[in-house]
Amino acid sequence: MSTESPLTLYDYWRSSACYRVRIALNLKGLPYAQKPVHLLKNGGEQHSTAHRELNPQETIPVLADGVRVIRQSLAIIEYLDETYGGHMLLPATARDRAHVRGLALLIACDIHPLNNLRVMQFLERDYGVQQAERERWTRHWMEEGFRAFEAILAADSATGLYCHGDAPTLADACLIPQVYNANRFGVDLAPYPTIRRINAQCLSLPAFDAARPERQPDAA
Amino acid sequence: MSTESPLTLYDYWRSSACYRVRIALNLKGLPYAQKPVHLLKNGGEQHSTAHRELNPQETIPVLADGVRVIRQSLAIIEYLDETYGGHMLLPATARDRAHVRGLALLIACDIHPLNNLRVMQFLERDYGVQQAERERWTRHWMEEGFRAFEAILAADSATGLYCHGDAPTLADACLIPQVYNANRFGVDLAPYPTIRRINAQCLSLPAFDAARPERQPDAA
Repeated sequence: MSTESPLTLYDYWRSSACYRVRIALNLKGLPYAQKPVHLLKNGGEQHSTAHRELNPQETIPVLADGVRVIRQSLAIIEYLDETYGGHMLLPATARDRAHVRGLALLIACDIHPLNNLRVMQFLERDYGVQQAERERWTRHWMEEGFRAFEAILAADSATGLYCHGDAPTLADACLIPQVYNANRFGVDLAPYPTIRRINAQCLSLPAFDAARPERQPDAA
Repeated sequence: MSTESPLTLYDYWRSSACYRVRIALNLKGLPYAQKPVHLLKNGGEQHSTAHRELNPQETIPVLADGVRVIRQSLAIIEYLDETYGGHMLLPATARDRAHVRGLALLIACDIHPLNNLRVMQFLERDYGVQQAERERWTRHWMEEGFRAFEAILAADSATGLYCHGDAPTLADACLIPQVYNANRFGVDLAPYPTIRRINAQCLSLPAFDAARPERQPDAA
């Protein structure tokens, strides 16, 4: 991680949205500095005054490119693709880009936000939902999402070694962190053979391996 | 709505994700056919075999462009921009696109999915959360999201008549349906003067007006 890079990622090892961006940066071969934002310590460092000035949403990831600040993992990845070239994470045609974005958004809109820390905290604090029940909630949305994701991959002739064709895209950068979360919460992946196959394929690549949560400097 | 258009939107009048796509189609001046998918009738028509074949996720919107099927509202809108030209919903530079996508994703990932029908149904059925409490949940995520959205708009010198500059973008196509939902659930919009100003500006345009839920053929 060169200190001369203009890129700084405000990051947390276990955030799957951050994990997506680390995969993208690594696939594109872009060096970057990491600034850990601990989501649990000090009442949540994402709520600090300094971080709120960077991102009024009080979330991560945030990417700084020099003085430019970019928020939201999918916006960051599209920005990197458009600005830095290299390995392209969006395909070359509008039709294929729509398919890849649709897969990415299935995860980024319809699975991940329901299982975020702030949602877990609300369920516990406001509704008194116990941990076992919160974990069932988490698994429910992952299973519902994976069932659809698997069906779409299995039906599409463009599915290859990866979610779309034989090179990793934005869809894989979203899928692999979601599989990490699924394993963490004990989701049975047996019903999703295509997802399991692509996950193994991705994790065999150094770019995905180096982005794993447990490889980050702030990992517990 | 010409029957000669290759575009068919699988739509529901009150779905804010569908409302985004209607705004985009209207801004681009693209005629389209509407196929209503009633989310509440017949156990939810989005769960029918026919719809599941079109979209294994059992959600709307879905856009058919001839035989091509595109899922997820933001992927649909980017596809329309890239394929049909006309009024552009994404700005011309990577930096500005990142800003607009960041605003759109704040709504599409961090507000809307938490307040979806399927989430409301889970809270009621599995946790016994009563209607007044479910509505508090809905308002909570909208208020948290709008607070950040307002702060970002207020701090950005590129905020103009619309969320970004003086022409409507993808960000406005996401914001106005979210304001509709906020009004529906009694969110006090007084703390968000920029959002209120942009909402009024957008609704004065025929493209936004024609996309309103109550103007749709399937409106109750």
